[in-house]
Amino acid sequence: MTISYQFMTDHLATEQITAEPVTAEPGAAPGPAPLPPGLLARLPTPCLLVDLAAADRNIAAAARLVRGTGVRLRPHFKAHKCTELMRRQLRAEGCHGVTCQTAGEAVALAAAGFTDILVANEVVDQAGLDELGRAAQTARITAAADCLEHVRRLDRAAGAAGTTFDVLVELDVGAGRCGLPAGRPDLVPLAAAIAGAGALRLAGLQAYGGHVQHSPGLQLRRTLCYHAELQVAAELERLAGAGLSCPVVSGHGTGTLECLAPGTLYTEAQAGSYVLLDAAYQRVTRAFEPALYCVTTVISRPEPARAVLDAGLKALAVDDGLPVPAGPGLRVVRLSDEHASLAVAPGADPAVGDKVLLIPSHVDPTVNLHDALFVYDGQALQRWPVDGRRVTALP
Amino acid sequence: MTISYQFMTDHLATEQITAEPVTAEPGAAPGPAPLPPGLLARLPTPCLLVDLAAADRNIAAAARLVRGTGVRLRPHFKAHKCTELMRRQLRAEGCHGVTCQTAGEAVALAAAGFTDILVANEVVDQAGLDELGRAAQTARITAAADCLEHVRRLDRAAGAAGTTFDVLVELDVGAGRCGLPAGRPDLVPLAAAIAGAGALRLAGLQAYGGHVQHSPGLQLRRTLCYHAELQVAAELERLAGAGLSCPVVSGHGTGTLECLAPGTLYTEAQAGSYVLLDAAYQRVTRAFEPALYCVTTVISRPEPARAVLDAGLKALAVDDGLPVPAGPGLRVVRLSDEHASLAVAPGADPAVGDKVLLIPSHVDPTVNLHDALFVYDGQALQRWPVDGRRVTALP
Repeated sequence: MTISYQFMTDHLATEQITAEPVTAEPGAAPGPAPLPPGLLARLPTPCLLVDLAAADRNIAAAARLVRGTGVRLRPHFKAHKCTELMRRQLRAEGCHGVTCQTAGEAVALAAAGFTDILVANEVVDQAGLDELGRAAQTARITAAADCLEHVRRLDRAAGAAGTTFDVLVELDVGAGRCGLPAGRPDLVPLAAAIAGAGALRLAGLQAYGGHVQHSPGLQLRRTLCYHAELQVAAELERLAGAGLSCPVVSGHGTGTLECLAPGTLYTEAQAGSYVLLDAAYQRVTRAFEPALYCVTTVISRPEPARAVLDAGLKALAVDDGLPVPAGPGLRVVRLSDEHASLAVAPGADPAVGDKVLLIPSHVDPTVNLHDALFVYDGQALQRWPVDGRRVTALP
Repeated sequence: MTISYQFMTDHLATEQITAEPVTAEPGAAPGPAPLPPGLLARLPTPCLLVDLAAADRNIAAAARLVRGTGVRLRPHFKAHKCTELMRRQLRAEGCHGVTCQTAGEAVALAAAGFTDILVANEVVDQAGLDELGRAAQTARITAAADCLEHVRRLDRAAGAAGTTFDVLVELDVGAGRCGLPAGRPDLVPLAAAIAGAGALRLAGLQAYGGHVQHSPGLQLRRTLCYHAELQVAAELERLAGAGLSCPVVSGHGTGTLECLAPGTLYTEAQAGSYVLLDAAYQRVTRAFEPALYCVTTVISRPEPARAVLDAGLKALAVDDGLPVPAGPGLRVVRLSDEHASLAVAPGADPAVGDKVLLIPSHVDPTVNLHDALFVYDGQALQRWPVDGRRVTALP
């Protein structure tokens, strides 16, 4: 069996690789749909507000990006952990199945009726393995593995639950996290062990380029995706040589949906952030628009050049930088537990009690801080629970 | 009326202000009490584990630090939002009442039976004001204010709930967040407005030195506390001159309990982190010891020098740096949503499935990520809900 690399060289040849300028400023977002008079003022702050029309435009944009590439979208639940929003995403053209990152998320998805769930991660602790078994009672469960210990544990858990798990061998295509780096001698024995395990099925490869997603410049991301394709192609050839078939190749994210092209070896894309977006992705792609805002209240104006909001580290993640005010004249300079400290430009004069909308810097850990999303569709306000948040029990 | 500054000059004169070396490495913590064989392995990871004996030693240490100073401890709920743990803290000598940071926390505390609650913050949004009114049905509620708009809103909310709120005027003693900076002409009119409001009572001042808490070196913290005392003294004099009495002066935190001395103008300390501590406080004080660990599982060993754990940004806050492994040979180099990437020193060889305990860098936003604390007292494991986490409802 041979695998053609032709598409990749064709694909890259069409465009010159240049130092494309990075979008330093967030794009000119239309801002959230105006809420009916008084409704914004009555929101309990801090809270998350979804502009549903913008989210729908993002869902449509993602469908356009995968169209014709042979890649199906398997949206990633970890971005928002809200089953109601995920249900809306799955209605789009080109979607099949859902991705999640933890066994607990798989349980929440299965309980909400999802039937094709990829846990794009290695699950090792016994509580998590038990959860996979529970989720598999009503859903097809696929999980990842990068060593024989994973195979032993997954096989035992599936067997104990009287079910079968699909398994993807995880490759490290440059992110430096889990997965086998290129050319490792243990790849083929590992895949063979999965194929030979009584309660497992070798479904294919996971090759997620986490390092690519926020790389500035579409051409840089295309080049890095090309490198990943080369590695995937080489590993598929090794596996095919050993008679091991890999129908699934899963990877990609919000930052690389624009890099997909016909002929790719990938069969599915695990993008998650695209539906709500965040300020970090706004800096690297204009394919999507912000659909998520943290609504805050001005609680103090101690001096003309300073304001303080009622949203801090417990409402907004800061691992990817500070949140960005949706309007002009304000800049977040610091977050503490329950406060955002703002610099106020001359001319801006937010009053105590005013609402300020912030675009979160990183959607996933921000939504994880909230129990619900407030969703406005232009007519009514709904509250959608973030029902995939972690729930623990005594062992 | 005159206020003596003598204690402060006396206090400072006894010690030379030198560049005390900062504790760069976390102290030699005894580590968590060993769990019974098999119990650690069965914990659902990632989860938070409290070493209750260590927490009890911290509670006793805080009681010793306030003893004889005339300052009473009003422990801060925001550090962990767990009413069960707060109940234990309040049993200690020198404690009276509880501090929290949000109206939602006040509701949780009142529901759990706490009857003297300081919301050490400005509450402005209507949902929050309604919550204060609800909490005040069973508890004495004190809130902070730094402008007339706060007075109007608090007075209206207390009146609507058929109750009275105590109010502290917030001073900014250097933290640069909420509160009136030194010498502001609006201080006296503001205090007078509170005293004159129908449903409010002027209780005193809040003067929390947030900027002092993590300042390296006890002498530096003592100097900064002295500056705050001078400002408080001057403002108390101005208020006394206008016939406005301030029985309460509230402030201080875990980093400045060691700075308390007889004669201070402060009457209560709002420390919170001391009971569980964290790696950031470990760098600046040895008055307390770590009592909180994030229990994780090794999920991948892709290369000898690297390991990956199943705890990431959704289990550990990173605003104050990366978490610190409790044992030798491992270093956290990066967190992603659900992973911690570790550097593994030669000689260390954690296996897939092993448990690794991490000391969180910042306790407050870390506990806020979890639904419960697993608490081990040397004999039994309990699960204490983090029942003060935010709960939202449609307006």
